[in-house]
Amino acid sequence: MSFNSFGHLFRVTTWGESHGPALGATVDGCPPGIEIEPAFIQQFLDRRRPGQSKETTQRKEPDEVRILSGTFEGRTTGTPIQLMIENTNQRSKDYGEIAQQFRPGHADITYHQKYGVRDYRGGGRSSARETAARVAAGGVAQAVLRKLVPGLKITGYMVQMGEKHLDRSRFDRAAILQNPFFLPDAGAVDEWSEYLAAIRKGQSSVGAAIEVVAEGCPPGLGAPVYGKIDTELAAAMMSINAVKGVEIGEGMGAAALTGIENADEMVMGPEGVEYLSNHAGGILGGITTGQPITVRFAVKPTSSILTPRRSVNTRGEEVEVITKGRHDPCVGIRAVPVAEAMMACVILDHLLMDRAQTGGQRGEIG
Amino acid sequence: MSFNSFGHLFRVTTWGESHGPALGATVDGCPPGIEIEPAFIQQFLDRRRPGQSKETTQRKEPDEVRILSGTFEGRTTGTPIQLMIENTNQRSKDYGEIAQQFRPGHADITYHQKYGVRDYRGGGRSSARETAARVAAGGVAQAVLRKLVPGLKITGYMVQMGEKHLDRSRFDRAAILQNPFFLPDAGAVDEWSEYLAAIRKGQSSVGAAIEVVAEGCPPGLGAPVYGKIDTELAAAMMSINAVKGVEIGEGMGAAALTGIENADEMVMGPEGVEYLSNHAGGILGGITTGQPITVRFAVKPTSSILTPRRSVNTRGEEVEVITKGRHDPCVGIRAVPVAEAMMACVILDHLLMDRAQTGGQRGEIG
Amino acid sequence: MSFNSFGHLFRVTTWGESHGPALGATVDGCPPGIEIEPAFIQQFLDRRRPGQSKETTQRKEPDEVRILSGTFEGRTTGTPIQLMIENTNQRSKDYGEIAQQFRPGHADITYHQKYGVRDYRGGGRSSARETAARVAAGGVAQAVLRKLVPGLKITGYMVQMGEKHLDRSRFDRAAILQNPFFLPDAGAVDEWSEYLAAIRKGQSSVGAAIEVVAEGCPPGLGAPVYGKIDTELAAAMMSINAVKGVEIGEGMGAAALTGIENADEMVMGPEGVEYLSNHAGGILGGITTGQPITVRFAVKPTSSILTPRRSVNTRGEEVEVITKGRHDPCVGIRAVPVAEAMMACVILDHLLMDRAQTGGQRGEIG
Amino acid sequence: MSFNSFGHLFRVTTWGESHGPALGATVDGCPPGIEIEPAFIQQFLDRRRPGQSKETTQRKEPDEVRILSGTFEGRTTGTPIQLMIENTNQRSKDYGEIAQQFRPGHADITYHQKYGVRDYRGGGRSSARETAARVAAGGVAQAVLRKLVPGLKITGYMVQMGEKHLDRSRFDRAAILQNPFFLPDAGAVDEWSEYLAAIRKGQSSVGAAIEVVAEGCPPGLGAPVYGKIDTELAAAMMSINAVKGVEIGEGMGAAALTGIENADEMVMGPEGVEYLSNHAGGILGGITTGQPITVRFAVKPTSSILTPRRSVNTRGEEVEVITKGRHDPCVGIRAVPVAEAMMACVILDHLLMDRAQTGGQRGEIG
Repeated sequence: MSFNSFGHLFRVTTWGESHGPALGATVDGCPPGIEIEPAFIQQFLDRRRPGQSKETTQRKEPDEVRILSGTFEGRTTGTPIQLMIENTNQRSKDYGEIAQQFRPGHADITYHQKYGVRDYRGGGRSSARETAARVAAGGVAQAVLRKLVPGLKITGYMVQMGEKHLDRSRFDRAAILQNPFFLPDAGAVDEWSEYLAAIRKGQSSVGAAIEVVAEGCPPGLGAPVYGKIDTELAAAMMSINAVKGVEIGEGMGAAALTGIENADEMVMGPEGVEYLSNHAGGILGGITTGQPITVRFAVKPTSSILTPRRSVNTRGEEVEVITKGRHDPCVGIRAVPVAEAMMACVILDHLLMDRAQTGGQRGEIG
Repeated sequence: MSFNSFGHLFRVTTWGESHGPALGATVDGCPPGIEIEPAFIQQFLDRRRPGQSKETTQRKEPDEVRILSGTFEGRTTGTPIQLMIENTNQRSKDYGEIAQQFRPGHADITYHQKYGVRDYRGGGRSSARETAARVAAGGVAQAVLRKLVPGLKITGYMVQMGEKHLDRSRFDRAAILQNPFFLPDAGAVDEWSEYLAAIRKGQSSVGAAIEVVAEGCPPGLGAPVYGKIDTELAAAMMSINAVKGVEIGEGMGAAALTGIENADEMVMGPEGVEYLSNHAGGILGGITTGQPITVRFAVKPTSSILTPRRSVNTRGEEVEVITKGRHDPCVGIRAVPVAEAMMACVILDHLLMDRAQTGGQRGEIG
Repeated sequence: MSFNSFGHLFRVTTWGESHGPALGATVDGCPPGIEIEPAFIQQFLDRRRPGQSKETTQRKEPDEVRILSGTFEGRTTGTPIQLMIENTNQRSKDYGEIAQQFRPGHADITYHQKYGVRDYRGGGRSSARETAARVAAGGVAQAVLRKLVPGLKITGYMVQMGEKHLDRSRFDRAAILQNPFFLPDAGAVDEWSEYLAAIRKGQSSVGAAIEVVAEGCPPGLGAPVYGKIDTELAAAMMSINAVKGVEIGEGMGAAALTGIENADEMVMGPEGVEYLSNHAGGILGGITTGQPITVRFAVKPTSSILTPRRSVNTRGEEVEVITKGRHDPCVGIRAVPVAEAMMACVILDHLLMDRAQTGGQRGEIG
Repeated sequence: MSFNSFGHLFRVTTWGESHGPALGATVDGCPPGIEIEPAFIQQFLDRRRPGQSKETTQRKEPDEVRILSGTFEGRTTGTPIQLMIENTNQRSKDYGEIAQQFRPGHADITYHQKYGVRDYRGGGRSSARETAARVAAGGVAQAVLRKLVPGLKITGYMVQMGEKHLDRSRFDRAAILQNPFFLPDAGAVDEWSEYLAAIRKGQSSVGAAIEVVAEGCPPGLGAPVYGKIDTELAAAMMSINAVKGVEIGEGMGAAALTGIENADEMVMGPEGVEYLSNHAGGILGGITTGQPITVRFAVKPTSSILTPRRSVNTRGEEVEVITKGRHDPCVGIRAVPVAEAMMACVILDHLLMDRAQTGGQRGEIG
């Protein structure tokens, strides 16, 4: 049991605080002989990095990852991989008031109550900055998957930001990495941008919903009944800062469906079983079907806002809290690469578990 | 790593198939000296038991739990508790066709692909019958919590079944255990009943949404960043058969909120901090606040229906599948006591984890 | 974390007390499609079973194993295997004094101190009877290994009992299962038998040392630095009741050797690398070499003896304790099949871990 | 499951290679609010550090530990503690031959076979240098134990080096830290020193046996049947490089004892139960008695020696191997602080597990 680890065989432990000297991830159980270069991991970090546009926090960090162990001559050795990202842009300032106050909707108060002591600088361990370590670990997972499951493709994008919803009829995968919202609709970017500007101007923040899809995942990954891959995906997404809901396939909408509607019918195609629909989101009984795995999750609005909110402090006094400083008006945006990283880690972990138990062999059809 | 275990310190491993001789749960790590009688556990099983009304499957099982180990003179000894429920009503019949066919939306095909062999009788391990073992384990957790957190109260109920939604203005806790739907609105029972009858008559089934609330949970349970209590609740609920979405507090709706709306403001009350709202669902930064913990989840419609659906069989032939036999038209109903059991297990597990790390001490306010 | 589980991927949780209704093992993670019949497991239990000769306790238990889950039509399905052994011969008697007294050298006092409550009947959970469940689980492991590593052979035998030592120059594998001591020297059986009779007559008991050897294990199992296979073998053996020391290869004798003596030199043979000696016991750096894995361990004398010993009781009074009843004068004898079972479980577990991480591929030599 | 982690609740993952940029330990689950300064940890590292005397390798490393996370204003926060030690003295040299050869008795060949790729520089991950990270983690454990179990004292020392044995009648605790052998007998230091010089001159190395004793450990730590504290101590010690045997209390000698001799009789003393002997080494049924916990283990001689030995290389050619470079002639010496660190980690881990399950309450006597 480890509070800060995830995964079973591909096991990631993240460490570090927002304003400490560094943060990182310890990755144990990685298969040996995998080509992996810092630059490959860096590309994923660069996507998550703050300071890239006016849509995200203006804290500028190079977020440069160093591989301190577990590789030799550019290949993994099967020993633990230590990924370290130094914190270079911790502003030195007076934290006097923030140190004693609890921001509404923030982990300030629960950390205080649980631990008695907390690193209040930049939110300490509860900062979204921790997710940089996950993205680095996800980069390692992607490198392994590139070799073990060549056709696998994991794609995350935003489907909602406050009142704005993705128009799925305009879905354009090519647009995703071309705009700061990871929005698969180039034509809607200006509208979303103006909407977010208004939110920021209103000294508020806004929630978001993200979808992540894994195409090309083989059938047979996952296991009943608590090692279900949807169980672990739900945990993976819910563990990301500020996430409040997770859906697989139809998600919460499944409550409204009938069994006739929900059945994903099957036929025999030239390459085997073909499904006529994917209400299940690629998972049946906790095991992948080979269809695209579809996960959605909601991120609550950033709790650090400029609008004063009623709160209390450590001395038990009522206070009004305003949070100045560098904060994303929509923390959900940066959750996109984090979710892709978590998806990569979960799929790889289950791939390793599957080859442990079944040797990767599949029951035949036909 | 165990595919069929959940929990870290209060660790439950379920075993058994729908039509095998028995099923059960092995519970390790239970605190010693806790009074526990089979009758206490039995009450939770009785709630989940099929055959109680026309709303659920007509398979009649007494579902009588036996405690085979881990207690002495009516108290837990700290050693593993084995809970066994014998299967007494396995109909002997010809499974010929079902053995070779894959029901759309069912785990038949993924079990076949992953394992090559499967116990097709009644769905084998993928049967909702497995959840009886979870409910038994949940009964043990409830017995421990009754002693360690006397005020804790865990309540599950339905909030949606297909087109029918709970009218929250009519919420009546007393009604929940008085009707077969666990519906907190006695006045709506007839309407829901007629709706479900029509679904059944239409040879279909229907989805559902369930809410579970834990009141009286102390602050400080859970831990960043992967041992968050919402992470584990999400996993716990998603691991229940047919669940497709999980929400904490505002859930997926958080995507539509602004930071001003979402902030749960705090004031000082006579007994300490008081929250003016609970958008967070009782959890901040993965740690309980002391407010009610609120979880919702959606259950897809039963995949075993009488309406023919297109599918394939193990020989790779296209077939039409009709599933006869005893099946719940809304499997979500029986998920209510299962969800309560999972909630109890997760809270107890985190209570034990918390007293391991912090000794149960809390940082003071004021 | 589970107090009563061992193994990572082939994961065994034992449960049950000496005088409860039953005991058993929950085996999770077993590969699917493995032929396994109760009779195969039963043969291992029969070897361990008490009441077979005057050398072991006269408690007669059929120790019949039932497979309650996880198999279908004689093959494993990949779901948890529940192995149950009913306790049929619990003598009903007055435990009055024993219930309050602590036998010197026995777990009575530590269970009392830790848990406050204990099942004192027959030692409860601390009884060597618990090892029957391990032997059953070991039978499952043997069935899997028979398929995955056809040439593997695990052999346990006694090398010491009190003053009696195996004369290795007379080692005869064929003799092991032909005498009640698992002694690989038929000619010494009478002498050992007389020695043990004298010990019993002297109202005492005696310690023993057992050796277990696994031949035909492939190289590459195990992993640095805490998942070393010798680390896990040491834990496995030390977890057996009354074990006080564990050795791999040269064991404690390695302290007396020089580096020149200890080097296992290598040459190229017709089938690859050949070692000229095996001081290492088949393990280098925590990973198997392909040579025989050699483990030895010492079992202390049974603490339940007829000779009065000074002790205290739960009321804090000094007492003299005599333990009547059915007790092995040398509990080490029955540890032999237990150790074989643990070895089988550890090797299988590491085989699964290895194929998870490396896919079972080996670096070539030559 | 993690190959490079140990502990359950106080969970340590070590990472790093001998000649990589750094190595360290990720410590998760540490209680919050514990005072801890780098200097406190450093004292333990200084004891283990090579280059201190002619008895150990001449590789000089400052082995300076940095705390990168998990503390704030000198106290632990309950979040992961990252301990990093930079490698500053990696000699740049030609590894040509060593890269292809396998040293007899070394992990070279098994790493090659398992992983296909290995960092051969200085032994990579199999280097005893890894144990520096364990010692750092042990320092954290010692800081926590200092607060939670004030009277606890863990002491390691050598009891054998090749032909030289500690004369227990001359045991002098004060001498241990005053000589390079951690020998509790100042008068024997010269003799041991000359003996080791002769071994080195003979281009060989030598084995050793170490004893570690924990005094002041409370009763009730540990748990049947696989979470026994002796099980975990055996694993902890066996996981240290080159260890081949582990003993608790009487250890392997228990095989020679009778039950009459082995019984640790008890009487009532002024402060409760008193034991008249400690054959058990402070552990009964896997649970501490409150007596000193006594562990011994044997370390094989260093496999890297100057005397040529027959071996093979990666091309399958027979070669003679001579290992030049900086190697301890008796690697057992530096295992002393490592064993103390492992003991500290295991005791703390079980202390946390105990307070999780029992709340730290003890069954009373009298």
